[in-house]
Amino acid sequence: MIKASIIGASGYSGAELVKILLRHKEVKIEKLFANASVGKQIDTIYPWLNKRIDTTLETYSVDAACASDVVFIALPSGEAMNTVPELFERGKKIIDLGGDFRLQESALYEKFYKHDHKAKSMLPQAVYGLPEWNRDQIKSANIIANPGCYATSAILTVAPVLKEGLIDEHGIAISSLSGVSGAGRSTNIELSFTEVNESVKAYKVGVHQHTPEINSTLTAITGKHVSATFVPHLLPITRGIYTSIYAPLKKNVTPQEISAAFKKYYFHAPFVRYSNSAVPEIKNVNYTNYIDIGFHVYPENNQLILFSAIDNLIKGAAGQAVQNMNIMFGYNESEGLV
Amino acid sequence: MIKASIIGASGYSGAELVKILLRHKEVKIEKLFANASVGKQIDTIYPWLNKRIDTTLETYSVDAACASDVVFIALPSGEAMNTVPELFERGKKIIDLGGDFRLQESALYEKFYKHDHKAKSMLPQAVYGLPEWNRDQIKSANIIANPGCYATSAILTVAPVLKEGLIDEHGIAISSLSGVSGAGRSTNIELSFTEVNESVKAYKVGVHQHTPEINSTLTAITGKHVSATFVPHLLPITRGIYTSIYAPLKKNVTPQEISAAFKKYYFHAPFVRYSNSAVPEIKNVNYTNYIDIGFHVYPENNQLILFSAIDNLIKGAAGQAVQNMNIMFGYNESEGLV
Amino acid sequence: MIKASIIGASGYSGAELVKILLRHKEVKIEKLFANASVGKQIDTIYPWLNKRIDTTLETYSVDAACASDVVFIALPSGEAMNTVPELFERGKKIIDLGGDFRLQESALYEKFYKHDHKAKSMLPQAVYGLPEWNRDQIKSANIIANPGCYATSAILTVAPVLKEGLIDEHGIAISSLSGVSGAGRSTNIELSFTEVNESVKAYKVGVHQHTPEINSTLTAITGKHVSATFVPHLLPITRGIYTSIYAPLKKNVTPQEISAAFKKYYFHAPFVRYSNSAVPEIKNVNYTNYIDIGFHVYPENNQLILFSAIDNLIKGAAGQAVQNMNIMFGYNESEGLV
Amino acid sequence: MIKASIIGASGYSGAELVKILLRHKEVKIEKLFANASVGKQIDTIYPWLNKRIDTTLETYSVDAACASDVVFIALPSGEAMNTVPELFERGKKIIDLGGDFRLQESALYEKFYKHDHKAKSMLPQAVYGLPEWNRDQIKSANIIANPGCYATSAILTVAPVLKEGLIDEHGIAISSLSGVSGAGRSTNIELSFTEVNESVKAYKVGVHQHTPEINSTLTAITGKHVSATFVPHLLPITRGIYTSIYAPLKKNVTPQEISAAFKKYYFHAPFVRYSNSAVPEIKNVNYTNYIDIGFHVYPENNQLILFSAIDNLIKGAAGQAVQNMNIMFGYNESEGLV
Repeated sequence: MIKASIIGASGYSGAELVKILLRHKEVKIEKLFANASVGKQIDTIYPWLNKRIDTTLETYSVDAACASDVVFIALPSGEAMNTVPELFERGKKIIDLGGDFRLQESALYEKFYKHDHKAKSMLPQAVYGLPEWNRDQIKSANIIANPGCYATSAILTVAPVLKEGLIDEHGIAISSLSGVSGAGRSTNIELSFTEVNESVKAYKVGVHQHTPEINSTLTAITGKHVSATFVPHLLPITRGIYTSIYAPLKKNVTPQEISAAFKKYYFHAPFVRYSNSAVPEIKNVNYTNYIDIGFHVYPENNQLILFSAIDNLIKGAAGQAVQNMNIMFGYNESEGLV
Repeated sequence: MIKASIIGASGYSGAELVKILLRHKEVKIEKLFANASVGKQIDTIYPWLNKRIDTTLETYSVDAACASDVVFIALPSGEAMNTVPELFERGKKIIDLGGDFRLQESALYEKFYKHDHKAKSMLPQAVYGLPEWNRDQIKSANIIANPGCYATSAILTVAPVLKEGLIDEHGIAISSLSGVSGAGRSTNIELSFTEVNESVKAYKVGVHQHTPEINSTLTAITGKHVSATFVPHLLPITRGIYTSIYAPLKKNVTPQEISAAFKKYYFHAPFVRYSNSAVPEIKNVNYTNYIDIGFHVYPENNQLILFSAIDNLIKGAAGQAVQNMNIMFGYNESEGLV
Repeated sequence: MIKASIIGASGYSGAELVKILLRHKEVKIEKLFANASVGKQIDTIYPWLNKRIDTTLETYSVDAACASDVVFIALPSGEAMNTVPELFERGKKIIDLGGDFRLQESALYEKFYKHDHKAKSMLPQAVYGLPEWNRDQIKSANIIANPGCYATSAILTVAPVLKEGLIDEHGIAISSLSGVSGAGRSTNIELSFTEVNESVKAYKVGVHQHTPEINSTLTAITGKHVSATFVPHLLPITRGIYTSIYAPLKKNVTPQEISAAFKKYYFHAPFVRYSNSAVPEIKNVNYTNYIDIGFHVYPENNQLILFSAIDNLIKGAAGQAVQNMNIMFGYNESEGLV
Repeated sequence: MIKASIIGASGYSGAELVKILLRHKEVKIEKLFANASVGKQIDTIYPWLNKRIDTTLETYSVDAACASDVVFIALPSGEAMNTVPELFERGKKIIDLGGDFRLQESALYEKFYKHDHKAKSMLPQAVYGLPEWNRDQIKSANIIANPGCYATSAILTVAPVLKEGLIDEHGIAISSLSGVSGAGRSTNIELSFTEVNESVKAYKVGVHQHTPEINSTLTAITGKHVSATFVPHLLPITRGIYTSIYAPLKKNVTPQEISAAFKKYYFHAPFVRYSNSAVPEIKNVNYTNYIDIGFHVYPENNQLILFSAIDNLIKGAAGQAVQNMNIMFGYNESEGLV
């Protein structure tokens, strides 16, 4: 039994973490830290937590946080870097759900996140928490950079065929569709019901911060220099990401080889479900930690089309964070997640 | 051909007015006034107006407004009362889509709107712009208080049977369901997509400002002292209001008498469609100025259940405003609206 | 550890049962019976079950079913009555999620369900499975009539104040709003996305089969003769029921007395959450077995307005069925449900 | 004033045609033909047409149809070819909203539509009714093959840059997202609300019948041999298509050249709105005949990303059909459509 605290518990990812940890038989939720909502019980903000937890939100302090074995940080990008160094120094295991430690190259961070990186010295300690590819490093990590939701969906889908050399690393286009909860709990007029409902739009075209995360991670795990085009779109659904990837197929590659690549890398992965026939659908993964992957070989056009679906708040955030925690503390990778 | 201007053109009702007036063959849009968006073309705020109108939003001044024959005011309640007196003094026809002139009793206004009424002396000039009941007064009115969306749906549905004495005026319960556009263009977190989608809630129970509007109007047009219970609910749809009314049926009243009451008052009303068999559905009225009305007689329980559906932005706001304008200026009541 | 089988596993309620039972630490899923889908693995019909269960759907036989300790029946109404007698005879515990055993009066059943009742002799054995009111009888029951989704939401909300005599039993109006999954997995054109989306309609006004269920159960548990008006509406959401009840308040009843009534009957109920201030919202109960209840006292109109929200597939079907099973077998009432 | 009849008036496109033609000042609706609904008034099927038209649906006969000047065919693909020859012989102008006459190559038709083409001799008479590219031929056409919804969105978006040689014709990927009304009025379980809502899926990957339509039309109008990859996705919205196109950018092409290409071909097109800055959104085109186009030049990856939005039932079906009719009969191209 370990103790866990959450910094930023009043956001969507923080609340989702609370829900998952309440079901986890090896974890006790110790402290919930927030800003604007300090002094309130979390179930007054999220009434769906009523009768399940009555913890009061507190102001963060490193001492209060250090009563826990593991600290989850569910803050907007740019804030975790103020906290991670002092928690690291005190020997805590840290899982950051934001973007601050996902890019090893701080210049790239500063270009896409548009502010300075204030904890560059921590970057070498950070492990990119994608269990399906970095399980061994996660086991011994002290700082986990929990992957972005879009990045999770894109990387898991394309990495096996890329690493096996079945597609070319040039000319990959990644078209992702996301539910609105991916933008967090926000009063932005563009996220109001009336503006989003019955519509679709692409956004942040060419400048989305998950672009360098996808490319640098794919480059790291496949050894190919990848510069994929990534375009996110906003959909009128609450949860879920659907990613369609258009990639240049190498000559004479067969569907069997594609299937074999997925089997090679994911046969033992508890949360990856791939199929050589079915196309994924968001409804099949929502409220779960699964990623569903499908594909279509289009030899006439020398193209491979890959599809995947995840729940952005679970496999794309809180669920993957708990999956990382399970690996770090030696629990069953699926504990609390099925 | 008349000239029309709109104060508050950048809100949802204002933009809907623009759309309707662009189709109206007797109206030229003269000036569009706004606050925060002054200096922008309206089609940069509402790109769906691109290629249809390129008018620039201006700061309101009474002189600029007076170049028009009719001035529509589509501002939040509490603001029209600052403007109406000076426009009235200059002899303009005014149609206010807000709540400032809907209640003749200013004490009631101040109780429900929670601020002072600053133009009480104008109240006797204001005509409640519900064409199906006040057509004659509208013809010669200078100030139209355009009805609230909920009030329109409730009053039109229950007034005929109430006036005919087929139901008791005590114990009427009005349960209304509204799409989110009824709340206007707002950054309120409670109106964000993620908070509204896949959910329903009642709100402002017992304190909604349309309650006195419904009751005082029903009292005025039926001669019965009505104090109905009104409960609005928020639904995850963009447009539309669905109203279900539970009313105590007088003894031995037949469905034929109910039908006859609707026929008596609405046979010549171009935008009222009533049925003695079909239940209304929001999809049948959306993007139109129609109200659809249906009912069910439940003699075992001495109850009459009435149903209606409108588009809150059209029959519940901009469409009804244009219907009023048509009546005021002697045009066909349906011009621009079908 | 007990064994459970499900007849009708390929419908929405059946699949939801599978999901809940997979999390239940005292239950092993033994057999899944279906009709059209026999021979398929259930995860080919519901791919979200992939990697979680690979049971093949079989044709029902009483012998196969009797290998289980408890048999859930999740069939359309009218079918369970063919099966319950033989299972009962073999000494099985039976939980029927359909309507066949909810009405003790078979004439009422035949009037509302529009076909004969073929197992009238079983009716005295059936216990109405609403744990909050019938917990003791459920403990020793062999046949559970699991309540209808609308009925659950209405009865739990109004029963305490009715039993305490705080409202009149005449003139109660129940207005319910349901998501589309309540209609089951159906190809009816009226349930197609395009017909339902962005709309609302009342349906089965005055003839819905949950009407006698609500009235006879309220009469049984409160001792007052109730004949409430019930109107269901279809909403464009997948899951959830929102019920608003308009009831004649007895003179001088205070909000404190209303609260006290809920406390009296539900203080120990693990899945009832009531509030004297917050209005329920569907999003707070979806994917849970909770019912959230709120109310508003409207003394000016001598009315009490009550609100509740449930997930129709969980507290309104599969969750409540498991709650009943837990009580029947002496498990913690919440096992598998939180 | 001309007379128009519609074969297949009871489907979504047929009803949308009725709505548009009712507003058209030069057209009288003569006959509405249907199959299953013969004998019913169209407003009993579509109550939103109540009080607007009360025409009774009739069984088609060539004689009855020939009382009109123009005949619209809004039938599922495979049925128009039975009717077009006899109408053509009688000298009628025909606008077919289905797929039967869109592919000049009947072998391609038979491969993708999976049945024989029974009116091959008519194919040379058919003009592909995309006004922005074929206006002159449409003027004198007798048979219009009204473009498919996806095809309209894809072709209009990519044709200018392709024709100007700003992108390579190899390696184009077209990712389209469609609302459910695109599938017509159907009882298919996969189109039920519960199955579609809060989800997304790709479908008919590699085999969708608009693929050859897109490629052959682009080849015809640009003179380049195009074999683009096309992937449709189903979204939980009623109306609208969003198309994102990933195309290999030629070296050193600037955003100004892209803009210039759109200007060159669409400056005079009344229903094309292109922008060099804004990204399209479905809500801006819904219920209109416009197509909104935007783009992003991504020189790092040698890619051009193009976006467009249309209303599938209007610019993608009935609106474009009326636009074609206007051109054929010498009316203002926008009549009835703004």
